[in-house]
Amino acid sequence: MTEHGYQVRTDLALEARERFAGTNTEVKGVILEKERDEARDITVTRVVIQNQAGAKAMQKPIGTYITLEAKNLQYADEDYHREAAVVLAKYIRELVPKKNRLSVLAVGLGNQEVTPDALGPLAVDHLCITRHLSEEQDDSSETVLVSSLVPGVMAKTGMETAEIVKGVVKETHPDVVIAIDSLAARSTRRLNTTIQITNTGIAPGSGVGNHRNCISEETLGIPVIAIGVPTVVEASAIVSDTMENLMDALEEVTELKSLRETLMQFQEQERQELIRELLEPDLGILYVTPKDVDETIRQLSITLSEGLNLAFAG
Amino acid sequence: MTEHGYQVRTDLALEARERFAGTNTEVKGVILEKERDEARDITVTRVVIQNQAGAKAMQKPIGTYITLEAKNLQYADEDYHREAAVVLAKYIRELVPKKNRLSVLAVGLGNQEVTPDALGPLAVDHLCITRHLSEEQDDSSETVLVSSLVPGVMAKTGMETAEIVKGVVKETHPDVVIAIDSLAARSTRRLNTTIQITNTGIAPGSGVGNHRNCISEETLGIPVIAIGVPTVVEASAIVSDTMENLMDALEEVTELKSLRETLMQFQEQERQELIRELLEPDLGILYVTPKDVDETIRQLSITLSEGLNLAFAG
Amino acid sequence: MTEHGYQVRTDLALEARERFAGTNTEVKGVILEKERDEARDITVTRVVIQNQAGAKAMQKPIGTYITLEAKNLQYADEDYHREAAVVLAKYIRELVPKKNRLSVLAVGLGNQEVTPDALGPLAVDHLCITRHLSEEQDDSSETVLVSSLVPGVMAKTGMETAEIVKGVVKETHPDVVIAIDSLAARSTRRLNTTIQITNTGIAPGSGVGNHRNCISEETLGIPVIAIGVPTVVEASAIVSDTMENLMDALEEVTELKSLRETLMQFQEQERQELIRELLEPDLGILYVTPKDVDETIRQLSITLSEGLNLAFAG
Amino acid sequence: MTEHGYQVRTDLALEARERFAGTNTEVKGVILEKERDEARDITVTRVVIQNQAGAKAMQKPIGTYITLEAKNLQYADEDYHREAAVVLAKYIRELVPKKNRLSVLAVGLGNQEVTPDALGPLAVDHLCITRHLSEEQDDSSETVLVSSLVPGVMAKTGMETAEIVKGVVKETHPDVVIAIDSLAARSTRRLNTTIQITNTGIAPGSGVGNHRNCISEETLGIPVIAIGVPTVVEASAIVSDTMENLMDALEEVTELKSLRETLMQFQEQERQELIRELLEPDLGILYVTPKDVDETIRQLSITLSEGLNLAFAG
Repeated sequence: MTEHGYQVRTDLALEARERFAGTNTEVKGVILEKERDEARDITVTRVVIQNQAGAKAMQKPIGTYITLEAKNLQYADEDYHREAAVVLAKYIRELVPKKNRLSVLAVGLGNQEVTPDALGPLAVDHLCITRHLSEEQDDSSETVLVSSLVPGVMAKTGMETAEIVKGVVKETHPDVVIAIDSLAARSTRRLNTTIQITNTGIAPGSGVGNHRNCISEETLGIPVIAIGVPTVVEASAIVSDTMENLMDALEEVTELKSLRETLMQFQEQERQELIRELLEPDLGILYVTPKDVDETIRQLSITLSEGLNLAFAG
Repeated sequence: MTEHGYQVRTDLALEARERFAGTNTEVKGVILEKERDEARDITVTRVVIQNQAGAKAMQKPIGTYITLEAKNLQYADEDYHREAAVVLAKYIRELVPKKNRLSVLAVGLGNQEVTPDALGPLAVDHLCITRHLSEEQDDSSETVLVSSLVPGVMAKTGMETAEIVKGVVKETHPDVVIAIDSLAARSTRRLNTTIQITNTGIAPGSGVGNHRNCISEETLGIPVIAIGVPTVVEASAIVSDTMENLMDALEEVTELKSLRETLMQFQEQERQELIRELLEPDLGILYVTPKDVDETIRQLSITLSEGLNLAFAG
Repeated sequence: MTEHGYQVRTDLALEARERFAGTNTEVKGVILEKERDEARDITVTRVVIQNQAGAKAMQKPIGTYITLEAKNLQYADEDYHREAAVVLAKYIRELVPKKNRLSVLAVGLGNQEVTPDALGPLAVDHLCITRHLSEEQDDSSETVLVSSLVPGVMAKTGMETAEIVKGVVKETHPDVVIAIDSLAARSTRRLNTTIQITNTGIAPGSGVGNHRNCISEETLGIPVIAIGVPTVVEASAIVSDTMENLMDALEEVTELKSLRETLMQFQEQERQELIRELLEPDLGILYVTPKDVDETIRQLSITLSEGLNLAFAG
Repeated sequence: MTEHGYQVRTDLALEARERFAGTNTEVKGVILEKERDEARDITVTRVVIQNQAGAKAMQKPIGTYITLEAKNLQYADEDYHREAAVVLAKYIRELVPKKNRLSVLAVGLGNQEVTPDALGPLAVDHLCITRHLSEEQDDSSETVLVSSLVPGVMAKTGMETAEIVKGVVKETHPDVVIAIDSLAARSTRRLNTTIQITNTGIAPGSGVGNHRNCISEETLGIPVIAIGVPTVVEASAIVSDTMENLMDALEEVTELKSLRETLMQFQEQERQELIRELLEPDLGILYVTPKDVDETIRQLSITLSEGLNLAFAG
């Protein structure tokens, strides 16, 4: 993750876009659309990065990023999760290729023994697997053939995750890979409340762990849909946020604009560097999670698999 | 945990004592001694709260608090953990009553399904249990009879943890209870690197979860030794620390003493209140953990049980 | 379990009663009634042991034993399990005392780390726990206050299970204990397809493990309802059954009555002794399970907890 | 597993060879050698199937089968397990190709959620994985590069295990695959006490579950060493054994040779068919395990991984 320099990392295109919000200018090559599902209290944002200029500004690959924000996802309300799964299924179907007997390989990325990184393996565990049952059926059927893989992390396998997925794709010939992963967000508000669906695959250094090498159409030769939920926020991000809020609050009650101005002279990247230096250095990068992360991750994994099951249930 | 007001909570007497360090005055009714085991890189601090004045100042019950600080505990070095267990065993023996056929009930507090709170149940799981084997032996032997209990958390049992422990103590008549628990620290530097041993039992609101009601000599009628390791830090604590570091750093390069002075006018409690308001409010109290908390907790639980096994192995 | 001599052990009163079926005589002091729920394909048998004569003949304590036989329980059909839970709830309510604000302590017996013995702890894990929520409500309400305990096994705790339960009962004053346990059956046909509910508590040596000492009204001072499912069969039982079937089958095609007669001269107990000697002796008592026992136990534990949740939901 | 007809299945070449023991003739094309390690109480048997005649007689592929019988493996004696791992390492090295920078892919076959089938995944979990660390080292080194894969079972993945392994082998180019699997034995005496190492790979229908399609040099293009431990015995096997023992025992005390003769007229296969019909049919094929199978499997998985770690530790 050091490849990101000292800028606080976010895997959400939505948050990358928000960096530009303050300046209020349009970002060239980036389209932003919002929809609101009032009944379900879900905001759907579509960020489309159209070209290299947009990709450079956003530091994300070209493609479509659909983000569902549903703050009730963090609670263990089964009815709500079921409705969220219906919405999720709709957007998955939108990004997945249309084809008879579509063959889908779902890949659960991450480390199943580290709770905030276990979302992918857990979600895959609840999928309805059908590829081995449907081999005899005739070719014209609308059935979707679902297979799944939990490749494990490099420290456990000795292999790049991308190597394993590539090998299995070449041998079993799916039409599309759906990669499910834990993400890192910039804002604690997004923790376990946001689902991002994108057709850009998984870029290097993404995910909570570091699943090296790309899992993308470029490397696999077939479309890769990535579905992710932010399960951690870097501790330095919340320090930074809080300090900005503090500066704003203090400005009102004191005449101390000069400190604010001093800090404003730093670029965001320099400020993050400063904050990281000021944070206790011994423990590596610290992550912030709610205490009931084990329960939350379990619930979210079921919602993701339900969404996929609905998307592919004939 | 709201019973603590807005002061950032610490379960470590050592950290409670450090609040007074800046003023450099002695705290009345509180004795502080430090030893250094250079070979093993372990600092042992003994805080003795002697009377009500000390208890009030420290916001901790009267008693002895021994803290082992060993920053290598956070790494999975088995040899080091084995040496730390030897040191731990020494201090446990110091606090435990001397008696032939001492009967010890080890209680693993916390929720085994929430990783940072699972330290107690996991530690108890590795203990050498001997009470049921030794019942026939003669009374003069030096054997220690070890039994263990994992009472679970109130949300799962519907009972106060203290009720369960009391009932079992009354029925099985141990001479001493050893309660093992996850703690909350003030500083990220102490995460998974510090072991506190105390003869004061477990006070209300302690632990990561909220194990209500005291488990102490007062309530159980027998001595209670509590052993704990900080496994979480409140997110607001690290924001606060970082901001103080920032103020110090900025002071050197700018003339902006006035902000610092403004902030210094707040009491620590008010400052914390401010920071909590500025933190994103939606997720309840956020906790900071290293990402590999699952592995770290497993390793620490083995070290605690090794320490206990050594302390009681004839 | 050696306390049973060489007779193959069964924890089911139904099977104890069937020993007398061949002779077709009534057993004195034992009442037997059968009902049939055709719609759900469930047979309900009620065995009432009325007095000491019946207890001696059956080698089971005086009391009522209700057995639900539902062979579809062994399959993972959620709808069927839900219906079985409804039937189960009805019979639990029949045996449980009638009282406003009934306080129930559910105890999950067995070893959660040994799959066929984990039924009790798993079932308790899914219960709706309400005792800690309802303490303030007024006394006339019909609410049932549910608490739960997983005492663990003696090898892990150093204490008799009965000691732990006694201590907690004395401290928290429930009106009734419901003890959930894995059982041993005589016939593989009953594996994971039969639920026994009894008001006699748990007798010594019952369960798959050996939960010593009684958990019964006599020892606890309050009624104890025991709910169990056979999850194992001793290997010697199926050898014995198969041999009897073989003798019957051979009789038809050969004139070899004399072997049959020879074997018939043995009492069942002697025959079992012989079979145990002929079985490989090195591994202790072997148990027979279906291979998917992990999944089956998980499913059954949910059905039991559903039954209890329904029985106590207002 | 029905492809085996009604003959009780064994995955052990040793047991396949023992079928001929009664006749005391040599089996053509099959060499049998025994060694005895008295100090460690381990018997090592080497069965070499030399040609098609031997393969047909044994119903096993051509190749070398080394079997370690060590009855103390079933106990949780860590010292003994460590010594057994040393012996195991020796025989693994014997079968593995000699080469600088040998690249080994260890594959843990079986279903990690079904205890007796979880041996492979558990063993792989404890291996020292080095492939990703050693990529930069120079080519002349004696280092072994170890990678590992847990492909999962077809019901979970929708893919043949062999497809997944093939894909990963083609992409990552190991020199040898080591496949670790749970086996079925014929005799309960071999349960958890026997380790078979063979260079023939895994044949169809082997393992406790049914890992379809071969994982062998023929299908993968590189040598495949299979390591297995019998963790289950079919219930019908122990019935059959016990009945034979019974016949022998009865012969001595009665004149009832005729039944024995009647049974002897059946071929083994017919007898098994008869016994399966007489066994309760409802639960599918039942398996016999010791009750503490969870603990035993965990211990054995560590021993296997230790053996592999020793074999490949430079």
